[in-house]
Amino acid sequence: VSVHRDTVLYAGVDIGGTNTRVGFVSENGTIVVDTAFETMAHDPVEGFVRRLASAVQEMCGAFPSRTVVRGVGVAAPAANPRTGGLEDPANFAWGNVPLVALLEDALELPVSLLNDGDAAVLGEVRYGVARGMRDVVVITLGTGLGAGIMVNGALLQGAHGAAGEVGHTTLVPGGRMCGCGQRGCAEAYVSAPGLIRTTLELLAERHETSALRDVPSQDLQAHIIAHHAAKGDPVALAALTATGTHLGRVLVNVIQVFDPEAVVLCGGLVKAGAPLIDHAFSTVHEIVPARYGEKVRLLVSSLNSGEAAILGATSAMRDSRLRPNGIAARAGNE
Amino acid sequence: VSVHRDTVLYAGVDIGGTNTRVGFVSENGTIVVDTAFETMAHDPVEGFVRRLASAVQEMCGAFPSRTVVRGVGVAAPAANPRTGGLEDPANFAWGNVPLVALLEDALELPVSLLNDGDAAVLGEVRYGVARGMRDVVVITLGTGLGAGIMVNGALLQGAHGAAGEVGHTTLVPGGRMCGCGQRGCAEAYVSAPGLIRTTLELLAERHETSALRDVPSQDLQAHIIAHHAAKGDPVALAALTATGTHLGRVLVNVIQVFDPEAVVLCGGLVKAGAPLIDHAFSTVHEIVPARYGEKVRLLVSSLNSGEAAILGATSAMRDSRLRPNGIAARAGNE
Repeated sequence: VSVHRDTVLYAGVDIGGTNTRVGFVSENGTIVVDTAFETMAHDPVEGFVRRLASAVQEMCGAFPSRTVVRGVGVAAPAANPRTGGLEDPANFAWGNVPLVALLEDALELPVSLLNDGDAAVLGEVRYGVARGMRDVVVITLGTGLGAGIMVNGALLQGAHGAAGEVGHTTLVPGGRMCGCGQRGCAEAYVSAPGLIRTTLELLAERHETSALRDVPSQDLQAHIIAHHAAKGDPVALAALTATGTHLGRVLVNVIQVFDPEAVVLCGGLVKAGAPLIDHAFSTVHEIVPARYGEKVRLLVSSLNSGEAAILGATSAMRDSRLRPNGIAARAGNE
Repeated sequence: VSVHRDTVLYAGVDIGGTNTRVGFVSENGTIVVDTAFETMAHDPVEGFVRRLASAVQEMCGAFPSRTVVRGVGVAAPAANPRTGGLEDPANFAWGNVPLVALLEDALELPVSLLNDGDAAVLGEVRYGVARGMRDVVVITLGTGLGAGIMVNGALLQGAHGAAGEVGHTTLVPGGRMCGCGQRGCAEAYVSAPGLIRTTLELLAERHETSALRDVPSQDLQAHIIAHHAAKGDPVALAALTATGTHLGRVLVNVIQVFDPEAVVLCGGLVKAGAPLIDHAFSTVHEIVPARYGEKVRLLVSSLNSGEAAILGATSAMRDSRLRPNGIAARAGNE
């Protein structure tokens, strides 16, 4: 007599400033199916919750019987795992949102919440290029600049659950206005919108012809800049290398403070490619004294965009040891 | 019949870029006697070791019989507790020095070594204004800018024992040359020599009469600048407030990354007084979003200069639980 076991899945949700990705993850950490939709971060959160619920329910409807979805692990910016809320994330018009409560009502499943950077570092440490490491900084490059930091095998949380805001350290004193209201934040330079702002500055400063002059500024996107850089466009190349240098300086500061085993870059902007990443890493090697630079590994995630966060968010839901201190999933989902 | 017990003391040594302080600490954490001498960091380390040994032996000679000195806890910049060596500290001409081995030979006592920032945070957490806290950043302001960082009750060490180099994060891109060979390091602005460099810049830029114009530049010292600021000298005041603003920006970055319960300022430069500290704290309140600023306590050490490091270095020697991972004192001193 064979024992029929249910197939158990966990949903992982990575809420980005531009897109939200949903993946269903098996107990062994494989993403069996995934999808993505526009976050529409400038519209009210209620519409987002409805669209997420539709996406999850539609995917669940396609599963064979005997498939049990045990819960939903969510990764989001400015997430406070202790309260289950988002705390006015930059680039979002949602303000303070009790996201776990909203999603548990809409999905009728237990929901746990992690900061997106924390989810990414858990994903990289369990399934990615940082597998098995205990001191790692993961930098997430997308609409925002986030970080997930593991210190001696534990997530860096801070006294109030707000640690790791590398994107809102000051990179350029008195520099660009950031979405958070401060000036000169790293995120205002090292992010997809930061790359676009640098491109616009270079178009203003320089005289070279550039295919980017044909693109209305509101249509400029990181992938368009990367595309033209690959074809040799001088302004596009200069924008990527300048952004890479800025990123390198962020990495230097992180290395000086945390002395990690590795720094891992992940997120959509990593696809902007070689000029950005190469300049970031060469900046680190130029600036950081040899005694650090030779020891710290500079890595690029091997996972697709959002996968690390989806894997990290679901692994924290499955395994209570991975959860930040003081966070309990709301229902008996273990 | 009364039982005669030996009085047990531990020596604590705080090696600063300018002065070295030695204190003998009782088992309950009281500094029973202390002294200080010039470090002479630009002369060879052998002379320093001889002078430290003389100071320790002279003090020991004055103790009553039945006093046992169990060991020496040393706090120093760029200390690697895992190797027992200093790794080419900025502002020192010593290069890489096997300090523990040199001192054990000279003192014939077990010696343990901590980074000065780590010693300071241990001292503050056990005996100072951060008593009982588990997430704290202590900033040491003196010849250099150091930090000791406690995360969830443990010292932040990093993967190679080199974490916490807040002084060598970039504060001003392309700015002043730092003793470490980089440009624009926080330490080049927020330290006693940084304050002096800012004063010289202001004397060059501004036209006001200032008592500081009568002081040869090589004789300028932080306490002279503080003295004239207290009497209303406009250049001295401007130098202190500018240094305070720089310090505030360092604190903002530290708060964004660590989200600590408190930040504690200690070290000789804290004595430069109100204009510096006030501007540092008001800069934090201006820049940091209210959700952090209201939660993080901004504190000034209540211990005298070097006391926190002496207490921390000896408490780590007494109590193995306080030692960073992988450090064993060399002899049976517990």
